Amino acid sequence: MNDFESVESSLKNHLPEGEYEQVRRILYGKDCKELNLVDAEKIAASNDFEIKAFSMVENVSKEQSRSRNIVRIGLIQNKIHADTSAPIQDQFMAIYSRIEKMIDAAGAAGVNVLCLQEAWTMPFAFCTREKQPWMEFAECAQTGQSTKLLSELAKKYNMVIVSPILERDHLHGDTIWNTAVVISNEGKYLGKSRKNHIPRVGDFNEATYYMEGDTGHTVFDTAFGKIAINICYGRHHPLNWQAYALNGAEIIFNPSATVGALSEPMWAIEGRNAAIANGVFTGNINRVGTETFPNEFTSANGQPAHKDFGPFYGSSYVACPDASRTPALSRTKEGLLVTEVDLNLIRQIRDFWTLRMTARLDMYADVLANVTSKDFKPKIIKQ
Amino acid sequence: MNDFESVESSLKNHLPEGEYEQVRRILYGKDCKELNLVDAEKIAASNDFEIKAFSMVENVSKEQSRSRNIVRIGLIQNKIHADTSAPIQDQFMAIYSRIEKMIDAAGAAGVNVLCLQEAWTMPFAFCTREKQPWMEFAECAQTGQSTKLLSELAKKYNMVIVSPILERDHLHGDTIWNTAVVISNEGKYLGKSRKNHIPRVGDFNEATYYMEGDTGHTVFDTAFGKIAINICYGRHHPLNWQAYALNGAEIIFNPSATVGALSEPMWAIEGRNAAIANGVFTGNINRVGTETFPNEFTSANGQPAHKDFGPFYGSSYVACPDASRTPALSRTKEGLLVTEVDLNLIRQIRDFWTLRMTARLDMYADVLANVTSKDFKPKIIKQ
Repeated sequence: MNDFESVESSLKNHLPEGEYEQVRRILYGKDCKELNLVDAEKIAASNDFEIKAFSMVENVSKEQSRSRNIVRIGLIQNKIHADTSAPIQDQFMAIYSRIEKMIDAAGAAGVNVLCLQEAWTMPFAFCTREKQPWMEFAECAQTGQSTKLLSELAKKYNMVIVSPILERDHLHGDTIWNTAVVISNEGKYLGKSRKNHIPRVGDFNEATYYMEGDTGHTVFDTAFGKIAINICYGRHHPLNWQAYALNGAEIIFNPSATVGALSEPMWAIEGRNAAIANGVFTGNINRVGTETFPNEFTSANGQPAHKDFGPFYGSSYVACPDASRTPALSRTKEGLLVTEVDLNLIRQIRDFWTLRMTARLDMYADVLANVTSKDFKPKIIKQ
Repeated sequence: MNDFESVESSLKNHLPEGEYEQVRRILYGKDCKELNLVDAEKIAASNDFEIKAFSMVENVSKEQSRSRNIVRIGLIQNKIHADTSAPIQDQFMAIYSRIEKMIDAAGAAGVNVLCLQEAWTMPFAFCTREKQPWMEFAECAQTGQSTKLLSELAKKYNMVIVSPILERDHLHGDTIWNTAVVISNEGKYLGKSRKNHIPRVGDFNEATYYMEGDTGHTVFDTAFGKIAINICYGRHHPLNWQAYALNGAEIIFNPSATVGALSEPMWAIEGRNAAIANGVFTGNINRVGTETFPNEFTSANGQPAHKDFGPFYGSSYVACPDASRTPALSRTKEGLLVTEVDLNLIRQIRDFWTLRMTARLDMYADVLANVTSKDFKPKIIKQ
């Protein structure tokens, strides 16, 4: 199971041509065109990571009064690159050095908006329930070293970068948060968006470390489109995606860290449903590799204590408002996914499907107010 | 494209064994067991429709304080069976005679709760925009002939039947509605649930015929579980599924009529996402076949006028709270899908994933109230 490459490669290798096209159409929607990005591919090849690049633009109609609104979205999935017992700063720099190369490739690929994986600066140590040394990875969103380093790259490549980190908020009692930092293409700190829904499932003991986010559903109006970040577990909550879309998001990223036994059959469903239901693009990112920790921990599943967490199954992909999606990155290899989209598709699909106009949001405002009131009585007809 | 049987049969026929198991797991979740239902299969074989039957029970843990809560869910997908120029009553009886045989098979299969397809009594004539003769298919939900006929079968087979029809409400100005009638296993009318979201897309000119439903999100507490009905286009609205679940639904049916060019890549996503996000079972039904009408109509897609609508792509399936799902019925053949589930899975998954407890519904009540207020200002940070 752990070395299985991807559903797409299996289908492509084994299905007869006519049937492959039907299966692909039903499972992935309208076809996308492979992009040939020679310079970026060279960087990927010499650094041994995968690069996949697609254009979804041909499926989008030309309009009379708006020119095309082309954006290249980049998603990066990676492993950790030092032993988890190494000093915190060494662990961080080992990952950063790797990421830097991958961002070089994104720059060469002309990526406009790039998102990294959840808590990319560190191993996903929340399985351990230990506070030390892991909390030392936490940084100030605005002035931390990861923001400083990425700001340089953002400016260098004229690229918006979304950087999901572990945040320490010095101003508010040294509190810890799971936060995405948004850096403009000029290398400036634009703001932050905190994880709204915190898991209590399996090894995801994150509720031990940080609380539900208090930044609401902020949308960042960047040089390359309106973007928002729904971090990890928030993808299980359709209202979280919807609230970002209602605030105007055109691209919603879902930087994640999730493992196969738990969530793999959900992975291709949730980000895709969000794109369809809200008429937006979604960028879904999961890390790869298995992370091993210094001390053993248990997983509340009857199994003996162990030291590893994972494997994370990668499979990062982009989903589009017209129900099409890109193939996924590998389940096992580090990689960069480049997806060229035309943001005009959003309004075209909203005009065609009228999902926003038929949404009856006023009715649901009442439903939710009613459900959360103390004297809620469900609407049930008994036999 | 039109005679392609199903994704599942293509995968099963062509993928090497080891890879098939991986692809199946990632795409369909935990495996289900085929049920052998000899008597029902005999009826299906002699009447030339498909029957597929699965048990999802082995994936559900036994509990100490609750015994298993086994329910057999039945879904029927069918064609129309008379020329659309035949008298209305003949058209209805031709479909009913066919459905009766399929319900006989469901009875022999021990189905407890059965749902028919949307507007099963008639061709899906809303593409024509003609009122006559199609509005003559509309019936009183409580006293119409379809409710009377199905009540007999419900009683005979001790089976709850959900019957989606075109409703005429004589009491309220002879208004027309798209409505699901719920009949108890004792053959009694339990109530009705109207379609909440009405499409304005492609050939789905239903807004010409009836308005958004006014029955809210009613749940029916039957002898075999709490059920609700999210009719057709409502599946594109995550809040519609959620509102039924918040009122206590355990099984939510989505009786539909939808065609391939429009929605096929969404079909396997939406009902499945609803099952995952809300911790419920969903039963997703689509009709099969191509329906040809007496007068030509246009489809607002630049193509010449034509007389047919479809093909509907069938592919009915059941999705479970643990992200598993059944294989689909055929894309082309009529069929009965029998799925044996243990409703205890619902609470087990809710305990495990805690999606209801982490949902922050009070926050979203505020979000929706804010979005629908006249002075709504989206939360946007500008570069």
